[in-house]
Amino acid sequence: MSADSNPKNADQRYKDRMVRKKAVVDQSIARADQDRGVLLVLTGNGKGKSSSAFGMLARALGHGMQVGVVQFIKGSYSTGEEAFFRRFPEVRYHVMGEGFTWETQDKERDRAAAQAAWDVASELLSDESVSLVVLDELNIALKYNYVELEQVLEAVAKRPAMQHVVITGRGAPQALIDVADTVTEMQVVKHAFKAGVRAQKGVEL
Amino acid sequence: MSADSNPKNADQRYKDRMVRKKAVVDQSIARADQDRGVLLVLTGNGKGKSSSAFGMLARALGHGMQVGVVQFIKGSYSTGEEAFFRRFPEVRYHVMGEGFTWETQDKERDRAAAQAAWDVASELLSDESVSLVVLDELNIALKYNYVELEQVLEAVAKRPAMQHVVITGRGAPQALIDVADTVTEMQVVKHAFKAGVRAQKGVEL
Repeated sequence: MSADSNPKNADQRYKDRMVRKKAVVDQSIARADQDRGVLLVLTGNGKGKSSSAFGMLARALGHGMQVGVVQFIKGSYSTGEEAFFRRFPEVRYHVMGEGFTWETQDKERDRAAAQAAWDVASELLSDESVSLVVLDELNIALKYNYVELEQVLEAVAKRPAMQHVVITGRGAPQALIDVADTVTEMQVVKHAFKAGVRAQKGVEL
Repeated sequence: MSADSNPKNADQRYKDRMVRKKAVVDQSIARADQDRGVLLVLTGNGKGKSSSAFGMLARALGHGMQVGVVQFIKGSYSTGEEAFFRRFPEVRYHVMGEGFTWETQDKERDRAAAQAAWDVASELLSDESVSLVVLDELNIALKYNYVELEQVLEAVAKRPAMQHVVITGRGAPQALIDVADTVTEMQVVKHAFKAGVRAQKGVEL
């Protein structure tokens, strides 16, 4: 009888492997002993950037935190997340008035709307009662120069020490990645839209 | 005076570019004309997989949908998302009893807990009143063979036509990627944990 076919040995090996894994995990956890506000950047072309930010919003609400959201580009959408999170008094929610830039085709109007959204973001970033700030699609506003990168870097650096910030959108500028604590690049493996499925309520909308 | 320094020309070029972009976007939108339930797989090592699934849950609730969540591995955590989403009668929420497998070190107990979680998942996947089903960290349960891939593929294929399913966890099996409509691979660019910041409430917890 080989060692592999002996269930007792297999169980023991499983246990041994898990004991070693637990030791490694516990050690990593012990090493990570700081508590502070983190800056997260969610970028890349894949689906999940904004929804991830809204998932963190739900987590924060689960802990009774005050939170803020500014949506920089998706203003023309009537999204499920907006309908949902506006129900809660703990959420300050601002949507930029204009929607995707190729819908309006007017640079000055787009820039003015983005700046008004940025003013709300700045306020949230200087309010220590706000534990989590989501700046949804800010990277797009940065790409079109509707909001200045310098302004963003400065506001983020000066924010309250325990405040978390999540910035989403494809094409995050390198300077923002450099100052971030956690950065995820979401890559498209495949997307239903390409297969002819339109955006679905509860998934994209 | 060069064309670039003439603001009128620059504005016109901006407008022209956006008109072309709008035409391309509108055409893609017109081509995507199917409505059906989609299967999303969120995988990779980067942060954002589970939070993205929970963001979609919030969207679905914003549209008044009934939803279901089964958490396959994170059972030992008291997460913000659990505290939050359990507040809503539209959410059926099941957490597997045991937590990370290296915490328990008992294969049979782990497998039994995962199977009990899978039973709840199967029920959700055959209930057409449930519009969105989140199977959080199912990929991990598949990796350890706590749940059989064949069972999952069959249940997903037979589910109600308009039901959306989100499966998360690193290391999604290829057969699952093959049948999915939308797949995002979340890649770590950097992670605060490595810099010594422990998991933070409202972000990871």
